[in-house]
Amino acid sequence: MLIAPWTLARRAARMNPSIIREILKVTEKPGILSMAGGLPSADTFPIEALKAACEKVLTDSPREALQYAASEGFAPLREWAAARVKSQVGLETHPDQVLITSGSQQGLDLVGKLLCDQGAPVAVETPTYLGALQAFTPYEPQFVSLLSDGDGPDPEAVRALPQLAPGTRFMYLLPNYQNPTGRVMPQARRDALVAAAQAAKIPFVEDNPYGDLWFDEDPGRGLAARWPEGGIYLGSFSKILTPGFRLGYVVAPKPLYPKLLQAKQAADLHTPGFNQRVVYEVIRDGFLDQHIPKIRALYKANRDAMAEALQQHLPEGCEWRAPLGGMFFWIRLPEGLDAMALLPTAVDSGIAYVPGAAFFAHDPDPRALRLSFVTLTPDRIREGVAILGRVLNEALNGSHAPTP
Amino acid sequence: MLIAPWTLARRAARMNPSIIREILKVTEKPGILSMAGGLPSADTFPIEALKAACEKVLTDSPREALQYAASEGFAPLREWAAARVKSQVGLETHPDQVLITSGSQQGLDLVGKLLCDQGAPVAVETPTYLGALQAFTPYEPQFVSLLSDGDGPDPEAVRALPQLAPGTRFMYLLPNYQNPTGRVMPQARRDALVAAAQAAKIPFVEDNPYGDLWFDEDPGRGLAARWPEGGIYLGSFSKILTPGFRLGYVVAPKPLYPKLLQAKQAADLHTPGFNQRVVYEVIRDGFLDQHIPKIRALYKANRDAMAEALQQHLPEGCEWRAPLGGMFFWIRLPEGLDAMALLPTAVDSGIAYVPGAAFFAHDPDPRALRLSFVTLTPDRIREGVAILGRVLNEALNGSHAPTP
Repeated sequence: MLIAPWTLARRAARMNPSIIREILKVTEKPGILSMAGGLPSADTFPIEALKAACEKVLTDSPREALQYAASEGFAPLREWAAARVKSQVGLETHPDQVLITSGSQQGLDLVGKLLCDQGAPVAVETPTYLGALQAFTPYEPQFVSLLSDGDGPDPEAVRALPQLAPGTRFMYLLPNYQNPTGRVMPQARRDALVAAAQAAKIPFVEDNPYGDLWFDEDPGRGLAARWPEGGIYLGSFSKILTPGFRLGYVVAPKPLYPKLLQAKQAADLHTPGFNQRVVYEVIRDGFLDQHIPKIRALYKANRDAMAEALQQHLPEGCEWRAPLGGMFFWIRLPEGLDAMALLPTAVDSGIAYVPGAAFFAHDPDPRALRLSFVTLTPDRIREGVAILGRVLNEALNGSHAPTP
Repeated sequence: MLIAPWTLARRAARMNPSIIREILKVTEKPGILSMAGGLPSADTFPIEALKAACEKVLTDSPREALQYAASEGFAPLREWAAARVKSQVGLETHPDQVLITSGSQQGLDLVGKLLCDQGAPVAVETPTYLGALQAFTPYEPQFVSLLSDGDGPDPEAVRALPQLAPGTRFMYLLPNYQNPTGRVMPQARRDALVAAAQAAKIPFVEDNPYGDLWFDEDPGRGLAARWPEGGIYLGSFSKILTPGFRLGYVVAPKPLYPKLLQAKQAADLHTPGFNQRVVYEVIRDGFLDQHIPKIRALYKANRDAMAEALQQHLPEGCEWRAPLGGMFFWIRLPEGLDAMALLPTAVDSGIAYVPGAAFFAHDPDPRALRLSFVTLTPDRIREGVAILGRVLNEALNGSHAPTP
């Protein structure tokens, strides 16, 4: 790829603008009720606690917090993360296995750098998290879409991988309140899925940014806990504290850790030490035990508001399942409607959503769309869903015929 | 590369532990006088200004600072950087060309991702910045070492590149107080070098983390200013404010920007918005005009202390040039001495340095070593250099015979 006098890497041809980001730009128009972006509610940001922690870190250890630091991350935060992973998803974790990353998106990038070769298969859920497709794509894998249902990928599809896609490097799995569909994997499916992975000798990356955001029932034991040497686990502070600090972590099987660390050093030397110390200061004494339940309660009320509004306003033939946690509803429109084609009309009408097509590695479903229920208040959610209902009804009645 | 059940990417075989990091671990032993790491003096960190800025950002715009943010970076900081690049190195820069990165190390990683293909030549100085070799290596370029002297790479070597290494993607150049040698490119060399680059149609990446750290004379106009469409420019806040915030920026020719931005999105979505706003708050009203001269004065006094101590303590046959800025002395030992082989003795004697061999893409010079003069105080520098002199003299006198 030539942009004279520059010759770009072959991979650059595969890097394309983020559809979601382009949509978000449109939806920055004032007055738009956006259910598009996966932005946590700013009401959940612990502003005063962060302010006090900044003050404390810059008073107690400014010279250390502002200096270059270890690529592995701030040792106390690594210890905290190891204990957290153990208690949250049951994965025995030594602090030496924890790498602090610049958001869990960086974890995905490092995984891609470490494991993807041009043309080597990487199996993903159907649909899957768009940001992971974007992170892996520059490393030129060949994506394999796993047949998936409302409980997650089909274990039989995993058993078939060695024949279908020999040399599959890993599966990318999101057990809890998946972005975009909101579905959670039942424990029985996890058992079957990991058993199939072990039988097929295909390791996996378990991405868990939403696991803390359950509404009624803890989703329980994770995937890597079932096969520790075959699982890389990704955690994040973005949904439970603040995305603006860009803090996440990777737990890697010990033999992989040194290479992962080298990838991290090459990428940005280390994640900001200041940010790590401030977050550690906030969470060290059990802050999250009080804080996360508040987020759950807030999001659950929003989920309920959206569920009720969808029931009330969406035309017959729309399908969805109310999510048990996380941030998203996944709606399937009636036959003949196309979520991407309808988006301009929706935006003109004052709302935004993300067309579901962006989340498929293959064969995008034009009838799917994703709605976030955590950015707007319940009143605004009701207003937004009412508008969505109107747009869909008009489209069904032909006053805004979708493009074919 | 197999670490069962994982198959690693081919590139992983080329990722090795950072020698400098391994050395730094050794030198964390208490009591070691380390002249190894390139750590800015913590005395230069503007702790009170940062504290006030954290407080202000979390008071005035907490919901924005803690939320997901634009991948391009915080708009006012991009505007500031554009104006800065113009005034500092004479490169006309529009804010739309500025991408805020997680340290300039990330700029190097993104450049590698965007421009390097397996086996495609990338030309580097001899020696060059180790971190850049580490950032580019995972993208599997074939490094070409440019013949270089005390003024920088030889323009004739650049003219020969199209024959010697056809398809060279770019040159990686450090005009100011290069890490590791400390040398600055005279303006005449810059003219000749960029003319040769244009004639050979080979663009370049200009890395300038040390440009502000001149002692007596501003090093002046940069390289990209001479050929804006053929230069990517990297700037950093690490040496003039704090490395612990991990903030740098890339200025790219406009046609390259969209792909660079996509690489950034895939890598970590965006650099922490909080950090960007805090730094902007500190620098927006001319803070650096007062602050940078203080850093220069401090480092100049340290440079003078080290120059005097080297003169006094180093054995005959050692060669160096006192740098006119930056953070490093580059010492060439007398024939027969090997800086890597001597390092354990040096550490046992209470000092540390970085063997120069790590900074060469090819044909490492075993006689070179790098000393930082910005981490220790002048008194400790004199102490450390005296020990280095003793170690070298003993080695020359055979009491610590270097391994061959």
